[in-house]
Amino acid sequence: MAQMVSFREIIDDYEIIFFDAYGVIKTYNGLVPGIDRTFEWLEQHNKEYFIITNDASRSPEQLAASYHRRGLHAIESNRIISSGMLAKEFLDLKVNDGIVAYLGTPDSAHYIESSGLHTLPVAELDEINMDGVNALVLLDDEGFDWFSDLNKAVNLLRRRTIPAIVANPDGAYPITGSEVGIAIGALAAMIEHIVGKKFIHFGKPDSQIFMFAFEQLLVRRLVSKRQVLMVGDTLTTDILGGNKFGLDTVLVLTGNTLAKDAETRITSTGIVPTYICESAVL
Amino acid sequence: MAQMVSFREIIDDYEIIFFDAYGVIKTYNGLVPGIDRTFEWLEQHNKEYFIITNDASRSPEQLAASYHRRGLHAIESNRIISSGMLAKEFLDLKVNDGIVAYLGTPDSAHYIESSGLHTLPVAELDEINMDGVNALVLLDDEGFDWFSDLNKAVNLLRRRTIPAIVANPDGAYPITGSEVGIAIGALAAMIEHIVGKKFIHFGKPDSQIFMFAFEQLLVRRLVSKRQVLMVGDTLTTDILGGNKFGLDTVLVLTGNTLAKDAETRITSTGIVPTYICESAVL
Amino acid sequence: MAQMVSFREIIDDYEIIFFDAYGVIKTYNGLVPGIDRTFEWLEQHNKEYFIITNDASRSPEQLAASYHRRGLHAIESNRIISSGMLAKEFLDLKVNDGIVAYLGTPDSAHYIESSGLHTLPVAELDEINMDGVNALVLLDDEGFDWFSDLNKAVNLLRRRTIPAIVANPDGAYPITGSEVGIAIGALAAMIEHIVGKKFIHFGKPDSQIFMFAFEQLLVRRLVSKRQVLMVGDTLTTDILGGNKFGLDTVLVLTGNTLAKDAETRITSTGIVPTYICESAVL
Amino acid sequence: MAQMVSFREIIDDYEIIFFDAYGVIKTYNGLVPGIDRTFEWLEQHNKEYFIITNDASRSPEQLAASYHRRGLHAIESNRIISSGMLAKEFLDLKVNDGIVAYLGTPDSAHYIESSGLHTLPVAELDEINMDGVNALVLLDDEGFDWFSDLNKAVNLLRRRTIPAIVANPDGAYPITGSEVGIAIGALAAMIEHIVGKKFIHFGKPDSQIFMFAFEQLLVRRLVSKRQVLMVGDTLTTDILGGNKFGLDTVLVLTGNTLAKDAETRITSTGIVPTYICESAVL
Repeated sequence: MAQMVSFREIIDDYEIIFFDAYGVIKTYNGLVPGIDRTFEWLEQHNKEYFIITNDASRSPEQLAASYHRRGLHAIESNRIISSGMLAKEFLDLKVNDGIVAYLGTPDSAHYIESSGLHTLPVAELDEINMDGVNALVLLDDEGFDWFSDLNKAVNLLRRRTIPAIVANPDGAYPITGSEVGIAIGALAAMIEHIVGKKFIHFGKPDSQIFMFAFEQLLVRRLVSKRQVLMVGDTLTTDILGGNKFGLDTVLVLTGNTLAKDAETRITSTGIVPTYICESAVL
Repeated sequence: MAQMVSFREIIDDYEIIFFDAYGVIKTYNGLVPGIDRTFEWLEQHNKEYFIITNDASRSPEQLAASYHRRGLHAIESNRIISSGMLAKEFLDLKVNDGIVAYLGTPDSAHYIESSGLHTLPVAELDEINMDGVNALVLLDDEGFDWFSDLNKAVNLLRRRTIPAIVANPDGAYPITGSEVGIAIGALAAMIEHIVGKKFIHFGKPDSQIFMFAFEQLLVRRLVSKRQVLMVGDTLTTDILGGNKFGLDTVLVLTGNTLAKDAETRITSTGIVPTYICESAVL
Repeated sequence: MAQMVSFREIIDDYEIIFFDAYGVIKTYNGLVPGIDRTFEWLEQHNKEYFIITNDASRSPEQLAASYHRRGLHAIESNRIISSGMLAKEFLDLKVNDGIVAYLGTPDSAHYIESSGLHTLPVAELDEINMDGVNALVLLDDEGFDWFSDLNKAVNLLRRRTIPAIVANPDGAYPITGSEVGIAIGALAAMIEHIVGKKFIHFGKPDSQIFMFAFEQLLVRRLVSKRQVLMVGDTLTTDILGGNKFGLDTVLVLTGNTLAKDAETRITSTGIVPTYICESAVL
Repeated sequence: MAQMVSFREIIDDYEIIFFDAYGVIKTYNGLVPGIDRTFEWLEQHNKEYFIITNDASRSPEQLAASYHRRGLHAIESNRIISSGMLAKEFLDLKVNDGIVAYLGTPDSAHYIESSGLHTLPVAELDEINMDGVNALVLLDDEGFDWFSDLNKAVNLLRRRTIPAIVANPDGAYPITGSEVGIAIGALAAMIEHIVGKKFIHFGKPDSQIFMFAFEQLLVRRLVSKRQVLMVGDTLTTDILGGNKFGLDTVLVLTGNTLAKDAETRITSTGIVPTYICESAVL
């Protein structure tokens, strides 16, 4: 079973830290108190970090700005890797022209803009432009009318044989201490099931987002996976994905996994972090 | 493999006919032309019938009235068995008091009204009345705001340990010749997955709706399953369910299953009707 | 939430008791101590009972004999309803001639013998007799070579479009206090997934087995579902199935569900028994 | 929809070719006739290739030797990337000591031998050594007794909270032109479902095997994903995985996907290759 240790004890053993965002750096309540000290320490000790998030609702610049507004100034946008960036990479490499229809906010769409492609909210699809659509991207659960646009998305995929990309595999996300919201990953799974087609899913626990961050590192310096630590609050995304990619992992207890449940959940899922820490605060 | 025969050839061998509604008696276009002759013939030959439908959006009386408006006067409301009636039976037997929250139209709610119970649309749930809710029933995909009410339903089920009943297991239904709508069954499956709880599903192919019809018969006369024929257009609901209940089955080609696909679908699903007929028209 | 009561307090309110077998009447250790008093009491008080079991490995006669050998003489074979009996009913009604291939022990096969049908273990299938096979029945995890016969079953179903019937939906069963065995339900689900066809599953929580028992009752006397109590140790089969069929249900703590876990499991599955009792012993 | 082209027309546009093995280079019948010319041409034109296979039954050296025996001498073992190599990388990075239990042949076990770890077939597990097991690897469907060892694997995972690694996600594989065999991926999925734990799956369509090959390339030369072509016969593994990783893809018709079915399968799965070619023969 994983050892319960302090984050301070283990962080020195690694050169690069991958952090999940929600439940590790911030919660529905704002920043995790004291988390700014962690990023100061990393800077002082010349360690690198990436924030690896399944949040495709806003661009890295917008996500960084939201940390700055809350007083966490250390976080730079080029350190944020989101599942939306993988959707954009896919469009760049695989879809050369035409329209990309999307479900999400205008902010999330701005994100996937790509040379040669025109983005269009599903709400604006009609009989004429539908035949020019070459991909559908599911980005966020907000910014559209669920009844009319989910139905339109189903019928688009029945009519056109095009890739459907899901930029956030999560099924739900916390809104308050006790309530959750249905996330785009759950809506995507429903549509995938109705139309019977295989969607392309990016985001933890899938390896491709870890690889995307790792490649950014390799461009600048030679690192081994042994030097990287993944810090997350969710066993089924952060820890499962980090383990599979070959990283050491820390489960923190400031988010999805409560201290009283950690042991039971590890045993019942069989997903074992290398360490368990109270939080990622130093 | 199933034999292709005319409906006339086989109908004489049975005393009771179970019909699916959508795709057999009516389509998005109105009544199947000539289907009124089938019901006249049944009456003349003293055969009984039931219409067995996964449509829980309206009461049997309302469903019968809609046939009458279209000129099919033979159909009586007491011959219509819908999955909503099983939801009502469940509430009668298993939920003794309190509020039944529902997703669906007011028509569908009227349907499940039951002595001792108060029905309330999910939209009207609040912090106070939520603790008096003793069941949630998912009836229809219309009549509520998907974004706000599906999220409310998720949080209701996270807070209260109560039965959730799905009165229509279908994932989609035809709207025009080429378009479908997302049905309440797909929305229910999404919520079931998010909250991780087991819902109670009524409707074909589940046996309980066939049994419900069969029991109505047994009250009046002694019949054997060998005397009953199930007629449907969908392999995965009508034919699978009819077969499993022990009935002879007819696949008709006026709905979901096109003539050119019937053979392939039977082979790929392994669901074999006793007969295949062009239609249920005599 | 369900009330914790003594079995004595509630049993008087019902005319007919449905018992699960494993975990209620017997365990891997033999009979539940004192359970014979329950059956004596039922006899003295003129109450009826049925044992409703997903065990299709032996006939009702053999199952009754095994109770007798252990000293529980009250149990008669005509009171035992097993999922194998539903498989037999299906064959009687729906498969008129040819060979029924099966996976299971010779005892389990004897069970499904039916007029006009020839049973054959999958092991004896060959290139010639395969074309005469009109159904495959999966009865028990013992009595065949898993490697060779599961592969043969897969290829039979790829070649022949025939019904596949699973007479026990359970995925695993207890062998000792800490170990389980893989049950035929899990093997069936694997094959179903590989061949992509829909199998016909009988056994709790599916309603058809409850209906089968209820029909035996109705032949002799007029009863309502309100007069029947279902007693079981497993939420996902006994309690879910009993609830859905409209029966009051008792969860007992002598089998799959331990006293310390009952509350958590009820909350996490959303399957709520009417009552919780230590055991079915009076 | 994908264009039907000759392999010769497109191969010049790429610097590196990734080939699936089974259905592209060889079939149950031996080598695909003429495939040796493709590898000669690649060598003459200074193009690189990798063979990316979900076959974890034998080491790259053994796989290469089997091509040599059949007359395809061009294939070198360091060009073969198998899902078993990812299992070994996982063990190297994440499991530091103790016993690795495995299901598979001795050849497959040799494969995952790793410094500091002792491999042990599941058959040899007993009450004493079980507590020293720190991982379970599922490698191949042969080399063990299904009944006794699958049951042992289930009980190992119920007792020990350890990672379970599946080195081949395929559910079935072709044995002759008309028969298939149940693959270790299907057995793994069954066990995963029974024990309710999350296994770690390596192999196409998962990105990590593509990344593993791509990293081998990057060590030697700077390449972009645009210069790599993935050639495969199976939409759901080769083409889905290649597409998702951002590669151009070719569906060949020498294996799983027959010419007459290609169009239908592409439409029904929504998995669209960049090109369709008769074969990978030049």
